[in-house]
Amino acid sequence: MSDSSFAPPINRLITELARFPGIGQRTAQRLAFHILRTPEEEALALAEAIREVKATVGQCEICFNLATEATCRICQDTRRDAELICVVEEPSDVIPIERTNEFGGRYHVLGGALSPIDGIDPEDLHIAELFQRASSNGVREIVVATNATTTGEATALYIADELRSRAPQVSVTRLASGLPVGSDLEYADEITLGRALRSRREL
Amino acid sequence: MSDSSFAPPINRLITELARFPGIGQRTAQRLAFHILRTPEEEALALAEAIREVKATVGQCEICFNLATEATCRICQDTRRDAELICVVEEPSDVIPIERTNEFGGRYHVLGGALSPIDGIDPEDLHIAELFQRASSNGVREIVVATNATTTGEATALYIADELRSRAPQVSVTRLASGLPVGSDLEYADEITLGRALRSRREL
Repeated sequence: MSDSSFAPPINRLITELARFPGIGQRTAQRLAFHILRTPEEEALALAEAIREVKATVGQCEICFNLATEATCRICQDTRRDAELICVVEEPSDVIPIERTNEFGGRYHVLGGALSPIDGIDPEDLHIAELFQRASSNGVREIVVATNATTTGEATALYIADELRSRAPQVSVTRLASGLPVGSDLEYADEITLGRALRSRREL
Repeated sequence: MSDSSFAPPINRLITELARFPGIGQRTAQRLAFHILRTPEEEALALAEAIREVKATVGQCEICFNLATEATCRICQDTRRDAELICVVEEPSDVIPIERTNEFGGRYHVLGGALSPIDGIDPEDLHIAELFQRASSNGVREIVVATNATTTGEATALYIADELRSRAPQVSVTRLASGLPVGSDLEYADEITLGRALRSRREL
């Protein structure tokens, strides 16, 4: 790659774009040239959207989902069942579940999955806060919707085990099989995921 | 899509990202969540790189390639043969040709290809400027390296025709066959493109 033929600002843009997951050097270059070709207004709208999102979007104090206020829209919505909590790994996992229209409860975003190899222990996730929610608010059921991967399964088992002793009154369930094993929740289609939600089983 | 579950700043970011060619709604959403997850510093570096590139990168006065000064690096490089000009459609087409290391001349970027159906006529491209360069500076040869597509071929034929009467002393050549027909220059591999350059033919 004779990158030396690019001006430094173009190289910097390509480097920044190539940080995206799944975007290689070639694609980053294509995107950079698109930005160069695009009207200034449109390109700056993207830059501004990035700044705005980083400036205004934080974490919900209750469930750690994305939020532009202290708490997220779902936690603010009083029509949603506060006794039913769905536990997911990432904020992006909330979307496919919402899309099924099968779930009327609240969420709890862990911020990842347990993975001792990568040094991710219970203290690194919002697990203590989940236990607190489970024992305080008259919670009826916790649906553990971590990914159907090794780390997601391990996280689900750990949470179920702990909850059995810490909040024995709460029933802990897991999404039904139906999700292809080894796949990420984010890519599941609505029907499969909806069916998996309906036939969730006791852990 | 129940996009209503996203906060407005997130929706705006997704919309802006989905403007990229080849980036659909789903991928834009994935990229947006990556930006949300990423440290603030890194996300702002991307926003800044976009601003910087739009603020500092313009067009070369001579060849219309990208340039951070009045003229581009290639036009400024006195070691490059000023009597040999390679005509391309877009600034991004300069890169694969540079990568072959087979070309030591200058460039002329048209800014697209002729396409009467889309209303793109000779006046919409930097064709008049090419004719001026061809007749003024003792130019020896013009290699027409527009894409091997219908519009690219039509543009090459138009330029060759006009140059025959306007600058009869200049020899006009075309990249040799070897490029798969109907493909874009940007995706050609170095070897094929290098061979095509070496065996360019009289138009």
